[in-house]
Amino acid sequence: MRATLMHAAGDVRIENVPDPTIIEATNALVRVTRACICGSDLWPYRSMERSDRGQPMGHEAIGVIEAVGADVRTLKRGDVVVMPFASSDGTCIFCQEGLPTACTHLSFFRNQGKDGAQAEAIRIPYADGTLFRLQIGKDDALMPSLLTLADVMGTGHHAAVVAKVGSGKNVAVIGDGAVGLCGVIAAKRLGAERILLLGRHPDRIALALEFGATDIVSERGPEAVERVGQLTAGQGVHAVLECVGLAQAMETAVEITRAGGAIGRVGVPQDAAMPASQTAFYHNVTVGGGPAPVRAYIPELLPDILEGRIQPGRVFDCVVDLDGVPVGYRDMTDRKALKVMVRP
Amino acid sequence: MRATLMHAAGDVRIENVPDPTIIEATNALVRVTRACICGSDLWPYRSMERSDRGQPMGHEAIGVIEAVGADVRTLKRGDVVVMPFASSDGTCIFCQEGLPTACTHLSFFRNQGKDGAQAEAIRIPYADGTLFRLQIGKDDALMPSLLTLADVMGTGHHAAVVAKVGSGKNVAVIGDGAVGLCGVIAAKRLGAERILLLGRHPDRIALALEFGATDIVSERGPEAVERVGQLTAGQGVHAVLECVGLAQAMETAVEITRAGGAIGRVGVPQDAAMPASQTAFYHNVTVGGGPAPVRAYIPELLPDILEGRIQPGRVFDCVVDLDGVPVGYRDMTDRKALKVMVRP
Repeated sequence: MRATLMHAAGDVRIENVPDPTIIEATNALVRVTRACICGSDLWPYRSMERSDRGQPMGHEAIGVIEAVGADVRTLKRGDVVVMPFASSDGTCIFCQEGLPTACTHLSFFRNQGKDGAQAEAIRIPYADGTLFRLQIGKDDALMPSLLTLADVMGTGHHAAVVAKVGSGKNVAVIGDGAVGLCGVIAAKRLGAERILLLGRHPDRIALALEFGATDIVSERGPEAVERVGQLTAGQGVHAVLECVGLAQAMETAVEITRAGGAIGRVGVPQDAAMPASQTAFYHNVTVGGGPAPVRAYIPELLPDILEGRIQPGRVFDCVVDLDGVPVGYRDMTDRKALKVMVRP
Repeated sequence: MRATLMHAAGDVRIENVPDPTIIEATNALVRVTRACICGSDLWPYRSMERSDRGQPMGHEAIGVIEAVGADVRTLKRGDVVVMPFASSDGTCIFCQEGLPTACTHLSFFRNQGKDGAQAEAIRIPYADGTLFRLQIGKDDALMPSLLTLADVMGTGHHAAVVAKVGSGKNVAVIGDGAVGLCGVIAAKRLGAERILLLGRHPDRIALALEFGATDIVSERGPEAVERVGQLTAGQGVHAVLECVGLAQAMETAVEITRAGGAIGRVGVPQDAAMPASQTAFYHNVTVGGGPAPVRAYIPELLPDILEGRIQPGRVFDCVVDLDGVPVGYRDMTDRKALKVMVRP
């Protein structure tokens, strides 16, 4: 089959690789009908050292089951499924507690034990625990929004949950990428009163306003902090969704949080240490978040998509086939594309 | 009157200073009957640069009201009161929300607008909001425990609340100082199943075991992490109370927290950046805490002291008069004393 391999920073290729097969009895094989390029794929695209064999890429997908192993109980050939970015056994103590990204069998690292989803097909470990069956045809118009359940919508929701967004709260979302925009949807959905988006790309801002953002802060650093202060009677916001991962974004997050407020961070931190630790302390600001347990959030978010109350699929502004994937990486890095959907 | 002034690191003196007076109509004058030396007083004792005028010291006290300003409504001469380390107006939005350390009039900084409590008397700003009246004689045997409501018991409780200690949880307390030991009391009180104390002073460990600690970890750094892993089936603890403030303690806190768990930090962070930020992220560990809103916790904690269910006053192992204060600082720094009570 054909699949996406990254060989080095800036070097993404579509290559012929062996077809995936059932290896363990809990596996399923999924024919990928839709995959994505993720903002987190851009970190290695900018910095990966050259690899001899290439790294399979992609961790979000919707597809159709082709085959299942002998121990798979809940899925069968022909089922349409969404594949969350992290696999999980569905039975361990962490899966039971709603944190499948800490699954004792698969831990939290993306793609561990998996091939890449930017490919024609993919083998799924622990298929019963990992995959979520959609009761819907494989070409339904809701597919783009359903695809976001694999990562970005669940991730934006996680940031909002960790930041304790609720009715009447003032919320800031840092970052106008796909996760930030889904964070706006999540904040609105959870009852936020005001939603400030910190971003500066006109097309993304326009989408954020449609999703429910009430104020746009296009400044950065100290100017952004001052502007948020002006918008919040000098107090800051109750909740911040940090959807970037860079030190400056985290520093801004701390400085705009109201005393006693909370930050949900889902941007993968690029630094070993967290800035503004003392500021967070003196203001009793809580910092949480991490790889989102998106599998656990699907039952809550799915009805809102099926019934049209939220439309996170609008973050996709570019669709490519496998041959278009290398250009998709380039365009997302250059910010020409917000979020790329791959149709193998 | 006589009061404690710090002039430089290691240089604490008892001096004659002008008697405090009512300056604003919300003030009260309190004759100090008991004060403390705090672990946080030891940071300037180790590092303060020489000051011309000297810094008044002490932020925990019990005393008797001598006079009140015209606007003080709830207190009168002769009332016995506990003075939390942070003053607060009692009426602003943050005081109403239970975070008096973020009071809009007085912010969170200790002693702001106040004199020091290691003195014969002290002027209290916003007396109605700051002071808590005790329905008890000024020489009651419970005084040492009641005195801890001014800081260390409320601070240990704050760490436990922020770390989401609850029934059946496994908890680690980092630090065997007075706050750490009060953290053990708080964790036990909130229903923790196992309480691991990370500390290495035999007398403090003995007290921790009496307070409810179930396991002692005397290792540090990677060895401590390994030991906690052995005690928790490799998972770590649900909740960590970080009661030190040094980078190594915080790093250990992150590394021993179970995925999805929480850290309540009340040790004043000595570094601008927080270590192990990525580790916290990948494990979805939440870090919160700060200056404890001890004034807001008194109504919850007081009955347990009055009815003898908790005895945080046992942390005091040394009592001095004002002349003994300089020696008290030295003995606490040298770890000869755990917590010093001052009886002016």
